[in-house]
Amino acid sequence: MTADAPFAFDGLDRVIHEKARLSILTSLISHADGLSFNELKSLCALTDGNLSRHVAVLQEAGLVAVTKGFEGNRPHTTCALTPAGRQKFMDYLNELERVLKNAAGAPSASPSTVPGSLKPA
Amino acid sequence: MTADAPFAFDGLDRVIHEKARLSILTSLISHADGLSFNELKSLCALTDGNLSRHVAVLQEAGLVAVTKGFEGNRPHTTCALTPAGRQKFMDYLNELERVLKNAAGAPSASPSTVPGSLKPA
Repeated sequence: MTADAPFAFDGLDRVIHEKARLSILTSLISHADGLSFNELKSLCALTDGNLSRHVAVLQEAGLVAVTKGFEGNRPHTTCALTPAGRQKFMDYLNELERVLKNAAGAPSASPSTVPGSLKPA
Repeated sequence: MTADAPFAFDGLDRVIHEKARLSILTSLISHADGLSFNELKSLCALTDGNLSRHVAVLQEAGLVAVTKGFEGNRPHTTCALTPAGRQKFMDYLNELERVLKNAAGAPSASPSTVPGSLKPA
């Protein structure tokens, strides 16, 4: 945020702000042990192709770690937020909170005024 | 939102969710009489070209009305939210509120639980 452009919302990182990726990150933030591809697919209503594409973008940006393993004989891929990903997503959520406050006509929130429930667990 | 895909965030209308358009709409919602192109440019830190392009998308979608007039001899273009635009933006903000609540691990809010400060003025 700059004083000159209070509505520019520079903190809305485009990697995170995209709707499908926002779904994925919101799903992952409440699951510290990660989620399987199948769980993410159904939580976010994404197709295999879309989920893979968006997870690749998040992985490339260092926000999400992907672990390929097996469950019995079947391949089992899980995704989890990285520590950096968690921090960047929290920063993004703080900026989103500022969008809501600005839209409601309230003064801008500084990060320290954001409710504790949005701090990393 | 569907029960099966709680994190799909279907209410995040892509026309509104794009970062520059979100800036423009947030600027306009607190200015019922509208804003000039120059005011929007500086509030949102957008170039002439980007502002024109994004305002055209919002106008096309019926969210924003553009009025071309003169101030003295100089052309003076103003933008304002349409009533439908105001309603759709409020719906979007309610969904954004749900993203924040979900990310914080709180139960989903129904529109009726959203603070009154986000209702149209």
